[in-house]
Amino acid sequence: MLEKTTRMNYLYDFYQALLTPKQQSYMSLYYLDDYSLGEIAEEYNVSRQAVYDNIKRTEAMLEEYEEKLLLFEKFQERKVLITRMKECLNEKPELQTLSDYVAAIEKLD
Amino acid sequence: MLEKTTRMNYLYDFYQALLTPKQQSYMSLYYLDDYSLGEIAEEYNVSRQAVYDNIKRTEAMLEEYEEKLLLFEKFQERKVLITRMKECLNEKPELQTLSDYVAAIEKLD
Repeated sequence: MLEKTTRMNYLYDFYQALLTPKQQSYMSLYYLDDYSLGEIAEEYNVSRQAVYDNIKRTEAMLEEYEEKLLLFEKFQERKVLITRMKECLNEKPELQTLSDYVAAIEKLD
Repeated sequence: MLEKTTRMNYLYDFYQALLTPKQQSYMSLYYLDDYSLGEIAEEYNVSRQAVYDNIKRTEAMLEEYEEKLLLFEKFQERKVLITRMKECLNEKPELQTLSDYVAAIEKLD
């Protein structure tokens, strides 16, 4: 479950702009703020089942976006490369400019 | 016009997976293969106006995706940083490993 939560947090981070405001609210309460389905249902005055269905649909949409755009997968690959570049550069304080570029690339993600 | 064509080519490249097959076909013929609206209309046995409307709608969708996800903008920023990193590394043949990581990051885009 923790693994799924982490993945959903990342996918939500990458694709939230493509969701509706309601989908964003439910996902953000459920995955970021750790609300239960019941608590969200109460908050929005809808049934627990409605919240559950909405979140399940949204999760499927996020996976579909990832299948098509691979933003999370590329992010992870870039992260590995950036870490290795940093390791190389740690031993070379004379290459500060290059380290700055690596940091800037990392910040873009 | 050339500038718009270049931009649309890039946006299409980043977001084509989010389009319908028909949208993909029209955009690809119009922007990549340089077909005219009339030629596409003939190919698909629809009116020139229908092709025009579909392409305009798709262009707007691509701009909307870019507004939300900024993939093209980030790609451009990364490209600048990668070029600068390469310039730094050109003068340092002893840092081949680092150059390989930069090349790998570039290939991810």
